[in-house]
Amino acid sequence: MDAVGEASALPNGCFHEPLTLGGVKGERVAPQGALDGRRLLYLHGGGYTIGSPRSHRPMAARIAEAARAIALVPDYRLGPEARFPGAVEDATAVYRALLDAGTDPGQIAVAGDSAGGGLAMALALSLKAQGMPQPSSYVSISPWADLTQSGASYRAKADVDPVITKPGLDQMALAYLGGLDPNDPLASPIFGDFEGVAPVLIQTGSEEALLSDSVTLADVLAHARVEVRLEVWPEMIHVFQAYGAVLNAARRAIKVAGAWMDERFA
Amino acid sequence: MDAVGEASALPNGCFHEPLTLGGVKGERVAPQGALDGRRLLYLHGGGYTIGSPRSHRPMAARIAEAARAIALVPDYRLGPEARFPGAVEDATAVYRALLDAGTDPGQIAVAGDSAGGGLAMALALSLKAQGMPQPSSYVSISPWADLTQSGASYRAKADVDPVITKPGLDQMALAYLGGLDPNDPLASPIFGDFEGVAPVLIQTGSEEALLSDSVTLADVLAHARVEVRLEVWPEMIHVFQAYGAVLNAARRAIKVAGAWMDERFA
Repeated sequence: MDAVGEASALPNGCFHEPLTLGGVKGERVAPQGALDGRRLLYLHGGGYTIGSPRSHRPMAARIAEAARAIALVPDYRLGPEARFPGAVEDATAVYRALLDAGTDPGQIAVAGDSAGGGLAMALALSLKAQGMPQPSSYVSISPWADLTQSGASYRAKADVDPVITKPGLDQMALAYLGGLDPNDPLASPIFGDFEGVAPVLIQTGSEEALLSDSVTLADVLAHARVEVRLEVWPEMIHVFQAYGAVLNAARRAIKVAGAWMDERFA
Repeated sequence: MDAVGEASALPNGCFHEPLTLGGVKGERVAPQGALDGRRLLYLHGGGYTIGSPRSHRPMAARIAEAARAIALVPDYRLGPEARFPGAVEDATAVYRALLDAGTDPGQIAVAGDSAGGGLAMALALSLKAQGMPQPSSYVSISPWADLTQSGASYRAKADVDPVITKPGLDQMALAYLGGLDPNDPLASPIFGDFEGVAPVLIQTGSEEALLSDSVTLADVLAHARVEVRLEVWPEMIHVFQAYGAVLNAARRAIKVAGAWMDERFA
């Protein structure tokens, strides 16, 4: 996964370097055109068991470029070596370090894909629980938001999803959770109380086994009075935004997400 | 309802006149800045039992202005005098008359609020069933899309929704359907097969008893590979877009919907 990420082109002029924030190692990815002080906390996907700032560097860079922000991509702890809630603790620590460094929360957006899209929502709940200020917005791409795997789309989209299978996710959930409860909202944000969190954009493909996670998350956020936009992109697969080199829709979706964040920075 | 509509200001320079299309009386509402040949078929709300082109003239005018189109607002048949599927037949007849007059379907958008938002989705199914070309897009505002009234939000939002009550809708459903089956997709579009219909934007308020209708509709459309955007506007009520005189969010939502349609006209 790292090799694929490192072999893919970054936006022209994009700079990256190692960075440790809040005791969590990671990367700082600075595209051209980033506005002063704007930060994108990007949480990579990989089922809480794989993936890294290297594997997702092009994705983080493209989204940061669209949001005109500098991305911070933590190498949060993964299962099975580090179990739940290690990932949530690390994401929270990085966010806290940003605030401690004087970053205006209105100048922070949080985004993530797949498990990272779920982790972004778990971070929203974690910040709320700890009384920390919310960022300006969240972008949750093809989120894995229900580790109980209850979504109707697992069956409905089983024949068309080329990436995600329920057995695969079951294995990742086991590695991340060990014997812990998948109904914990920090593991499965669809069970959380989101009242008061910042606006959320959810982007998903219509051909995803995880489609129901996105719809259910939108439903839960909506009932909690959160500003929500759910976008379903037809004929698209899990985290299609990663295929910008060959898919117009990927580039358009990233542009749309960037503009949406741009409008919500303080 | 007509008196309220007729007492409300139209956009500057907006012109309106009676018009009969496909044997259905109605109004043509022409805001300034409409592009040549662009049409917005606007289906008013009112629970399939009340409302008219007069009551919804300001709403149709504001949305048409935002979409840079001329609105056509049919006075479709209402219950209890005319029962299901009279409203769907009338909407279909008007759309067919537009095509017969040479209008490019790519230059037609369909929008509606409340029952009209559900009717817009019933029209999508009707056009598909009859092999007629789809319009460029649909905008469904606070749709009443489930006349079986199964949504969880009826209970969850009962205390905060100042407009819609389940008993009120039960009465309207009875007046519209008589003894007919509310599970018919042309009455309750959430039971329809939307594969192949044009893109749909759903706007809803977070404080709506009908919130679940919007989320379920988005879910059904998404599973059918339709391009969907669901927007949940926090702290907003049923068809909040009608309160542009006092609500910034109403004006912003109409602007967003207009831009969304604008991008999808052929």
